[in-house]
Amino acid sequence: MEKVRVAILGGSGYTAVELLKILLRHPHAEVVAITSRDPQPITDYHPSLLGRIDLMCEPFDADALKAKGVQVAFGCLPHGASIEAVGPLLERGVRVVDLSADYRLRDPKQYAEWYGETHHDTANLAHAVYGLPELYAGKIRGARLVANPGCYPQTAILGLAPLVAANLIERSGIIVNSLSGVSGAGRSPKLTTHFPECNESVSAYSVGKHRHTPEMEQALADVAGEPVQVIFTPHLIPMDRGIFSTIYATPTKPVEETQLLELFRDYYAGKPFVRVRATLPATKDTVHTNFLDVTVRVVRGKVVVLAAEDNLVRGASGVAVQNFNLMCGYDERTGLL
Amino acid sequence: MEKVRVAILGGSGYTAVELLKILLRHPHAEVVAITSRDPQPITDYHPSLLGRIDLMCEPFDADALKAKGVQVAFGCLPHGASIEAVGPLLERGVRVVDLSADYRLRDPKQYAEWYGETHHDTANLAHAVYGLPELYAGKIRGARLVANPGCYPQTAILGLAPLVAANLIERSGIIVNSLSGVSGAGRSPKLTTHFPECNESVSAYSVGKHRHTPEMEQALADVAGEPVQVIFTPHLIPMDRGIFSTIYATPTKPVEETQLLELFRDYYAGKPFVRVRATLPATKDTVHTNFLDVTVRVVRGKVVVLAAEDNLVRGASGVAVQNFNLMCGYDERTGLL
Amino acid sequence: MEKVRVAILGGSGYTAVELLKILLRHPHAEVVAITSRDPQPITDYHPSLLGRIDLMCEPFDADALKAKGVQVAFGCLPHGASIEAVGPLLERGVRVVDLSADYRLRDPKQYAEWYGETHHDTANLAHAVYGLPELYAGKIRGARLVANPGCYPQTAILGLAPLVAANLIERSGIIVNSLSGVSGAGRSPKLTTHFPECNESVSAYSVGKHRHTPEMEQALADVAGEPVQVIFTPHLIPMDRGIFSTIYATPTKPVEETQLLELFRDYYAGKPFVRVRATLPATKDTVHTNFLDVTVRVVRGKVVVLAAEDNLVRGASGVAVQNFNLMCGYDERTGLL
Amino acid sequence: MEKVRVAILGGSGYTAVELLKILLRHPHAEVVAITSRDPQPITDYHPSLLGRIDLMCEPFDADALKAKGVQVAFGCLPHGASIEAVGPLLERGVRVVDLSADYRLRDPKQYAEWYGETHHDTANLAHAVYGLPELYAGKIRGARLVANPGCYPQTAILGLAPLVAANLIERSGIIVNSLSGVSGAGRSPKLTTHFPECNESVSAYSVGKHRHTPEMEQALADVAGEPVQVIFTPHLIPMDRGIFSTIYATPTKPVEETQLLELFRDYYAGKPFVRVRATLPATKDTVHTNFLDVTVRVVRGKVVVLAAEDNLVRGASGVAVQNFNLMCGYDERTGLL
Repeated sequence: MEKVRVAILGGSGYTAVELLKILLRHPHAEVVAITSRDPQPITDYHPSLLGRIDLMCEPFDADALKAKGVQVAFGCLPHGASIEAVGPLLERGVRVVDLSADYRLRDPKQYAEWYGETHHDTANLAHAVYGLPELYAGKIRGARLVANPGCYPQTAILGLAPLVAANLIERSGIIVNSLSGVSGAGRSPKLTTHFPECNESVSAYSVGKHRHTPEMEQALADVAGEPVQVIFTPHLIPMDRGIFSTIYATPTKPVEETQLLELFRDYYAGKPFVRVRATLPATKDTVHTNFLDVTVRVVRGKVVVLAAEDNLVRGASGVAVQNFNLMCGYDERTGLL
Repeated sequence: MEKVRVAILGGSGYTAVELLKILLRHPHAEVVAITSRDPQPITDYHPSLLGRIDLMCEPFDADALKAKGVQVAFGCLPHGASIEAVGPLLERGVRVVDLSADYRLRDPKQYAEWYGETHHDTANLAHAVYGLPELYAGKIRGARLVANPGCYPQTAILGLAPLVAANLIERSGIIVNSLSGVSGAGRSPKLTTHFPECNESVSAYSVGKHRHTPEMEQALADVAGEPVQVIFTPHLIPMDRGIFSTIYATPTKPVEETQLLELFRDYYAGKPFVRVRATLPATKDTVHTNFLDVTVRVVRGKVVVLAAEDNLVRGASGVAVQNFNLMCGYDERTGLL
Repeated sequence: MEKVRVAILGGSGYTAVELLKILLRHPHAEVVAITSRDPQPITDYHPSLLGRIDLMCEPFDADALKAKGVQVAFGCLPHGASIEAVGPLLERGVRVVDLSADYRLRDPKQYAEWYGETHHDTANLAHAVYGLPELYAGKIRGARLVANPGCYPQTAILGLAPLVAANLIERSGIIVNSLSGVSGAGRSPKLTTHFPECNESVSAYSVGKHRHTPEMEQALADVAGEPVQVIFTPHLIPMDRGIFSTIYATPTKPVEETQLLELFRDYYAGKPFVRVRATLPATKDTVHTNFLDVTVRVVRGKVVVLAAEDNLVRGASGVAVQNFNLMCGYDERTGLL
Repeated sequence: MEKVRVAILGGSGYTAVELLKILLRHPHAEVVAITSRDPQPITDYHPSLLGRIDLMCEPFDADALKAKGVQVAFGCLPHGASIEAVGPLLERGVRVVDLSADYRLRDPKQYAEWYGETHHDTANLAHAVYGLPELYAGKIRGARLVANPGCYPQTAILGLAPLVAANLIERSGIIVNSLSGVSGAGRSPKLTTHFPECNESVSAYSVGKHRHTPEMEQALADVAGEPVQVIFTPHLIPMDRGIFSTIYATPTKPVEETQLLELFRDYYAGKPFVRVRATLPATKDTVHTNFLDVTVRVVRGKVVVLAAEDNLVRGASGVAVQNFNLMCGYDERTGLL
């Protein structure tokens, strides 16, 4: 069977290497190009790929990628930079799964408010599809541009969607307390991610100001049919990968744990990558997989949802391939189990 | 100056070794006995103490301790075992700082409910003082038996006391989301604390059922003058030591961050071990110290308190020495800075 | 194509779960049975497998396994226990890849000396093949019983084989200084692998007495055609997985780095899982893969070899599948890239 | 008693904060100045010091320090920068403990060879004393300039000195295989010390080229009375602090473990900070202390020494205070137990 020719934009970071590891095992994808400002072998950036791929990184050039027959591009660029690449590719008929935040917020005013910059590609923003397959699979299948979801938002959205859909919780005052491994901060060295600073320590950051907040609210509002308000507190904990969210909501009527677990199981029936568990999840059960594990408890009248995932696979590159599978008509599990 | 002769009950665990490290530098304390079921040198349990102390552990015997002139005993035994030792010591005039949970809950019914056992020493329970110096210093000074506070409760109580005292938050629905390093689980090997299981992972445990819940509520009710209700979720994160609590409460009227910070600073003026910070705390700033760092934020109408401490020093052995200092009439900082 | 029916003996540990993860992606293998003393679902032992496999563990019974059509069994039992299972399976025509140490040392006297027990199955020991594919592929193909190699020995043997084969180093006084992640110690909780004991610490163990020593020497003697003597020092370092060996040998004549790198490249030409690198290896580049990375340096007249691998994949379950592939006539890379 | 007025040069790094923690408990030292290019409060660099010290950092100015009555300065500057500060201070009668490498190698040619720069202060180099108290206490007492020893060299020198002094090992081919926690790499963020790069990984670096090599050889030659040659391989392992060295030497005649342990005990009798252990050391027993733990084994005719220390205390700031104590006539343990 012929393979889909794909390109990776921005090959030096953690989402790129994770994507490459998945795609190298994917039966229907062939990586034909990787872009980077420095034209060095991709294995210089990522020695873990030695013996598996032999590509030289090349500067981004939409025409060159088109000439190589690229059909789908995965954008692993930082926000802002991604906008520059997406337009030219779409123009040339290349479909894009963009892992940056540039096309996630439908309202450009929200982008301006949370990212501090005017959105320069509202034309493409208008048709971009938010790439959370459990909620938007239908639209993703036909999308030209998929905005791959953020790592934190997936735990919050998938952890709350069944409750919101069933109108079982109040739509404000929802607390999302999240813990992330350090790879979530990217690959650029900073003092906060310097080993002796963040190892053996935990701290919160961007309290009340994290950019994933509106993304959570946008998707949950889609489910609710009305605005949903979230208080989101991310924390950095000393591990490589994994996100754990503990979510607190106030029920609109008395609820019981078994009933809620049943609700979650029904809601995610047929969704292969959401595992509704009766036992408490741990990030370790999900790392290096595309699974999101979730359970629900009732504590003194509050609903407590606990959700875990790998921030690089489920939270980024795995779900990107899940989106790719949907876009290309493959089983969404292809290459991911 | 003559030194106070002290004993450690239960020398094999983490709180004992931490206590020894502090007491070996304390100008007014002399460790004259350490008990343990196995009569081996204390340095066999804790090679880190080699060259600093030369004591042989001895089986617990209240008369023998009395004969050695022990004036104050620090109990580092598990709950249940502690009850057996405390009574005989008090009878012989030895004052006790008990690091177990046995004398923390004033109401024996609560002990039965949360610890699943009838309390067998209600006589001494009746006069035990909860050893949180910032709230109960007066009573601690004269106490014969101090119930040293739990590690998690200190972050919750000290993080909420100023707000509760000022009647600024609702007294129910308070969320205490806490993260602990693994030493908090003690020194007995278990699958959950086996390195390859808990390293590079995070999970919640005892959701809605942790025994520190009533301890938080008892102290906060003292401050409030009426019941306070807390939803407490502890998590295990891959680090040796440190506790970080993120606390969410609903204000009873509109509040501002600067005002709350001022409130906290006033409340803890003259308390040397509570550091009210404008910046976000990190457990790393507190490890190996008796400091509890705390700050407060207002996020979308909720009050968010962030508190960090070392679970073994501030959360156990350091505050035990702070209590010892108060009991013996020393400056509470002695040996702790 | 019909799949080979395989069984896992001893499903509760780390090598078993790793094996399952690989075999679930293997196109020519079907796991039809997993044994364990406790007949619980395999996902209760390993929640990471939820949604991927649904087998119930069963007590070991050679007839029952035969009745299920098992063709190849992977032994993940501790040494000693493995001997009990291997014989009955071989008798029934089931081929075995044994991950324990029971059939690695050809000389039963060595087994007695290093493992402190008489070997009770010398009949099968006589035809067992040491399963290091880079050296013994020919014999492995036809073997009924493959003794899967130890984790440490692979780094030492593959790190030294080119030098020994070329007669470039002295055959005694070779130093193998190895560092292992904690999963190498197995899944049974012990004080030495209790998180707060081994995290943030490093120590050596079994100095001069580790059982992998004779295994290294046996294979290197095969290469040399005469005895080889190794001084082996293993250390435990605070990470989940990975082995790093730094090996020091005395050259028999003046050597140069570039010449030695060339020698290594030639020796491992056509061996897909040994990556001879010019740069210094890191365990992180090899984790979750079957690659062994190696480089060589000359320092003040000594040859220094540096080798890294994942102790659970390359060091155990990955190489077991590589052996399985050879035994069944598949490309040795099948399921491993 | 009057206190010695001290200054810290270069307050932003890890050795500076460690030094401050020790000096704040030292009964005879008063920190009166801290220098840094950025004139911010020292607690902005190190929030862990909040509530303990209130000094503002100031740019380096030898006259200003002299005017403040500084009697001893601790240099925590990088090599090269240190040379610029040491001369002016010595001229003004301020004694210096320099934690950089600038005055450790007596031969300026060695400095040029290993540090790639001409030494610009050979006048002061000529009278600088290498600050390893166990070997050079006499000279340290009267020194104006003490070159505080490197972290790795202390494990090698103290681990080998008894054997070299007794003429029990060959003086070439000595292997020093060392493992260091990441704080040893300093506080400037780099890719190699970025958490997701070095966590859960181990690698060697500067193989055969590390600048601590000549420092080891210089001190061991002092003990031997003739040249000693060392092959040194440092590795980075995922922990905050601690150094572990495994050292291999060839005995000049048959030796036994008990005899060697006795030799070590005799050699270090009266040296309070070297703990000769019969059991295997672990870095965890030494962290946050000034102890260096060491033991010795005989394995197949080789002598194997295993030594552990905290790289920031014993390896830098603790031994600096030990030197300060000697220079000022205090018991060398003052402030360090």
